[in-house]
Amino acid sequence: MRQAQHRLQVETPRRGLVEITRPVREWVASTGLRDGLLTLFIRHTSASLLIQENADPAVQRDLERFLARLVPDGDPLFEHTAEGRDDMPAHVRSALTQTQLSIPLESGALLLGTWQGIYVVEHRLRGQPREVALHLIGD
Amino acid sequence: MRQAQHRLQVETPRRGLVEITRPVREWVASTGLRDGLLTLFIRHTSASLLIQENADPAVQRDLERFLARLVPDGDPLFEHTAEGRDDMPAHVRSALTQTQLSIPLESGALLLGTWQGIYVVEHRLRGQPREVALHLIGD
Amino acid sequence: MRQAQHRLQVETPRRGLVEITRPVREWVASTGLRDGLLTLFIRHTSASLLIQENADPAVQRDLERFLARLVPDGDPLFEHTAEGRDDMPAHVRSALTQTQLSIPLESGALLLGTWQGIYVVEHRLRGQPREVALHLIGD
Repeated sequence: MRQAQHRLQVETPRRGLVEITRPVREWVASTGLRDGLLTLFIRHTSASLLIQENADPAVQRDLERFLARLVPDGDPLFEHTAEGRDDMPAHVRSALTQTQLSIPLESGALLLGTWQGIYVVEHRLRGQPREVALHLIGD
Repeated sequence: MRQAQHRLQVETPRRGLVEITRPVREWVASTGLRDGLLTLFIRHTSASLLIQENADPAVQRDLERFLARLVPDGDPLFEHTAEGRDDMPAHVRSALTQTQLSIPLESGALLLGTWQGIYVVEHRLRGQPREVALHLIGD
Repeated sequence: MRQAQHRLQVETPRRGLVEITRPVREWVASTGLRDGLLTLFIRHTSASLLIQENADPAVQRDLERFLARLVPDGDPLFEHTAEGRDDMPAHVRSALTQTQLSIPLESGALLLGTWQGIYVVEHRLRGQPREVALHLIGD
């Protein structure tokens, strides 16, 4: 049994979902581990992680429309506006989604379902450099 | 230290919560592992996992009423309606709850609190066959 | 490779966030493990865990204001009111945030980002004794 760790750098272009399934799979393969547990941890409070459908891009647009209605930018409810109208909404959106995800690995394959992709969700309006810590334990 | 893996099949009857605490505990016991970390990962994007109160069934009804108001079926906001009025709401409900849960195991017992049960939450109106990957590492 | 486990007792004073980053770090250091995966699991269904910004206290007030608007106490929607107006809202708030968090450990340091703190979120109006199970695996 052993461990491997890595930091995945993701340049988000703007608010929205960025799929990272492929680079995650490539790193897992590079470790040589075949059975274990992969953990992803995003090191930010205004971006988060999500497993979502990877087939129809409309799912991502709909998710964004839903979040924009639920947590509107510039909501007068919010006091913390240091970085702009999208600052506090980004923290709330992060709180409602995931900072961390763990996925079992079996016989060299992540146990994602057929339609599941792994996404970084950028919650700020402008893109940012984001870092996802990857941890794998197994054999 | 070693690992064990399993796939739990859950036939959901309809939208709502299905408790899986008992089959999960049974599988954990069958592995012979006494101390470790159990991870559950649901391989779908329109059903999710949740730890919730297992005492009063009204909690489950209230949770459903809350989600139905927050993410209404047939909302004209949504573009992705390929599988019906409940298609995109199911993805949003999944995004707001959990795809994965990890629970420590100590001296053969999962460290669930007194009132905590483990649930699969079906977000589609009709029941579906659902698969939960279980991963246990420990000794 | 080995494991360590601990139970962190947290007396919450009232509804709101209680930062636990320091006691968590202290326990991790006490185990002597340097590389691994830390898992936190809160053993309750009316309090939860959250990674949030630890710089500006206004973020915590804004998060509370958002949750109070989204899941109002005493909402006539709710049937489960055994423990009061804040009972069912506490379960819903828990469902929308996290019961469990895992954070990689590298060279003795938890891989939290610069602005990330670990919080227990009390969802009941009155403070309660809360227990967080900690599990660490690594070497």
